[in-house]
Amino acid sequence: MKTNLKHLFNKEIKEGVEILSIGTELLLGNIVNTNARWIAEQLSILGLNHFRQTTIGDNAERLSQLVKEISMRSNLLITTGGLGPTPDDLTTESIAKAFNQKIYARESIWEEIKMKLSQKKPYITNLSLKKQCFFPKDAQIINNPKGTAPGMIWKPKENFTILTFPGVPDEMKVMWEETAYNFIKSNFSDGSIFFSNTLKLTGIGEATVSETIKDLLELKNPTIAPYASLEEVKLRITTKAKSVSEAKLLIKPIKKELKETFSKNIFGEDNESLQSILVKELIKRNESIVFAESCTGGLLSSYITSVSGSSKVFKGGVIAYSNELKHSLLDVPINLINSFGAVSEEVAESMSIGVKNKLKSDWAISVSGIAGPDGGSDSKPIGLVYIAITGPNNKIIKIKKQYNPLRNRNEIQRLSVNDCLNSLRLILLS
Amino acid sequence: MKTNLKHLFNKEIKEGVEILSIGTELLLGNIVNTNARWIAEQLSILGLNHFRQTTIGDNAERLSQLVKEISMRSNLLITTGGLGPTPDDLTTESIAKAFNQKIYARESIWEEIKMKLSQKKPYITNLSLKKQCFFPKDAQIINNPKGTAPGMIWKPKENFTILTFPGVPDEMKVMWEETAYNFIKSNFSDGSIFFSNTLKLTGIGEATVSETIKDLLELKNPTIAPYASLEEVKLRITTKAKSVSEAKLLIKPIKKELKETFSKNIFGEDNESLQSILVKELIKRNESIVFAESCTGGLLSSYITSVSGSSKVFKGGVIAYSNELKHSLLDVPINLINSFGAVSEEVAESMSIGVKNKLKSDWAISVSGIAGPDGGSDSKPIGLVYIAITGPNNKIIKIKKQYNPLRNRNEIQRLSVNDCLNSLRLILLS
Repeated sequence: MKTNLKHLFNKEIKEGVEILSIGTELLLGNIVNTNARWIAEQLSILGLNHFRQTTIGDNAERLSQLVKEISMRSNLLITTGGLGPTPDDLTTESIAKAFNQKIYARESIWEEIKMKLSQKKPYITNLSLKKQCFFPKDAQIINNPKGTAPGMIWKPKENFTILTFPGVPDEMKVMWEETAYNFIKSNFSDGSIFFSNTLKLTGIGEATVSETIKDLLELKNPTIAPYASLEEVKLRITTKAKSVSEAKLLIKPIKKELKETFSKNIFGEDNESLQSILVKELIKRNESIVFAESCTGGLLSSYITSVSGSSKVFKGGVIAYSNELKHSLLDVPINLINSFGAVSEEVAESMSIGVKNKLKSDWAISVSGIAGPDGGSDSKPIGLVYIAITGPNNKIIKIKKQYNPLRNRNEIQRLSVNDCLNSLRLILLS
Repeated sequence: MKTNLKHLFNKEIKEGVEILSIGTELLLGNIVNTNARWIAEQLSILGLNHFRQTTIGDNAERLSQLVKEISMRSNLLITTGGLGPTPDDLTTESIAKAFNQKIYARESIWEEIKMKLSQKKPYITNLSLKKQCFFPKDAQIINNPKGTAPGMIWKPKENFTILTFPGVPDEMKVMWEETAYNFIKSNFSDGSIFFSNTLKLTGIGEATVSETIKDLLELKNPTIAPYASLEEVKLRITTKAKSVSEAKLLIKPIKKELKETFSKNIFGEDNESLQSILVKELIKRNESIVFAESCTGGLLSSYITSVSGSSKVFKGGVIAYSNELKHSLLDVPINLINSFGAVSEEVAESMSIGVKNKLKSDWAISVSGIAGPDGGSDSKPIGLVYIAITGPNNKIIKIKKQYNPLRNRNEIQRLSVNDCLNSLRLILLS
């Protein structure tokens, strides 16, 4: 009876999930722990209570001690890191040691690792790679389709399960999606879920957004949380519900209100980007587009071509970094550059007409500006950018931007690209 | 005597610094914990042993419990978050409660807070702001020049000190620099520092690197740690020393050995990138470069133009996404495209010659391939990429790459760009 009671008691206080990130590089501050954030988000989606995250270095003894500690207060532990072939990859053996268990080679996994390596690197014969096929006897393997190090699902004691993942984000994510998600959902979720829907805004600051919807930000279910980055503000609406359809119903009226409030600023939802919605819209219209870039140096084109299917609408572009090429490739008259300078409304306009004619498309965007850190002057400071957009009717829309000159080169390039894309979006909307 | 011994014993096992990040938004995965990385780096610079980082939500009871726990194993705790005016900002009171202490209003700080608010937001009259002036009796205040919430330095028991900071990164950083740095340095640092120097390698995998320098990876001071990303492997050499010059002396022989071992693969150190060293080298040679991009869609150009000063060598480029533009802008013969396909050695070669002639430069790189997820075939699978580099002597170097077809579009584009840049580096080296 006594044991039973104790067992029940333990069961009651032992609930919740923890994340453990393993790697001395994290303690040294060499890298930001993006894995913990990603997993935390996944646990939220599954509606799981997640109380604590810990980061620890590649030290076998401390790691064992910590895992033992966690096994006494939580019932599910997710670890990342330390599954690789190097001597400081100690996760599996240290976890096993915490429960006085040994690890054993699994020959079938070793064969798989060797096969993966022979395709990529036939010359590797490193025996330390074999380490990656050692697991406790009763552990279930999490297959790693993007790398050599598999993870495991292991239940070393009653009411405590560990899932291990490599520290490489891409490997961890695909392993989660292919294997861990379903395992956790069926074994740990109480059936309710957290469901989120994110609205994406641009052309408006976080302070203005927050001020405008002050009251909505106080809501408890759904909650609304704003997150700002350089180019955009996200409004994340989150609700806890029994099903996705119930969640969507709860979110619907809030979403409607936000869409009415920020009608011009909301460009998309969730995984959409300015470039993806533009590609979609241009495909729908059966219209093509080309770019003439100066200060953005190819970044604008790379944004569009990051979208799969962009070749249906994007024909190409010219990066005319030198004045010589602005003339020879885009037919910008030399005297225009001499009179107004390469960074001017006149040259941007001429670049836009030139690229549209030469590359023969329905739409053309040109951009010329001063990204810094050199090249600014009193009359043309760093952050001054001219954009020109020419459409099927050959009407030209000209936009002048002055970004904060204290911003760095990369920020000014990204803000310029964002304004090129958003300006086209607003033109297509109207 | 007994007490004394115990005290000594405690002192011995209780060493090390911990970081505690407080905020439910971290547990929900809403934001990445960049504060922990920044503080970790600062602790490294001060040469302090930092064994553990924890993240916890805005829950008073769990927070008290955790702080008590930490006070038993470490001697310095740095916290961020939970110092604001909202009901879920509970840090100071929860920490005090962990040691059965009360917090009291400090009227002078309250006056200061009110003054700060009247300057910035005269409309705020919220009394809960007063919360921010409550501290334990013997706590020392860390002034917050960028916000309203001060932090504290508090020693609630023998051999345990807590420093609290707000979660807003800009506020935390300036408070660290103005107050905490000196306090920690004079009270906790033994005068030594950690110093790191990172070598960057490409064209070689982490497994091969680790295999080759197995013995070096076992070194204790300096230590060498490998970190891999999609395009590169970093070898970080870290040493603990009395001064930067002593550290550099300790690192020197290791660095020399690594440079000899990986002479072809090491392209730079620390903040250098392939593109930054290429821009530097081309400036030195007074040679210009242009690009003709297909599958990389502008990404190659954007890498070069991310380097400030790149306009000295990069004249521009052509993104010939459509076959039509490969012909009209780069003079690639239509029959060449028809016979061999746009993704072929022949077309890549012709693009490279075309762009060099049209844009008149010393060097030209062209790249054509299949980035996916569509467009692959049995004879030309996703991940097949042709690169051609033409130099001042018009000699053409042709490179064929087959990346793993399971890689996504963005990865194949980034790997292609990396191989374009690295191939040019190797040509310039030879």
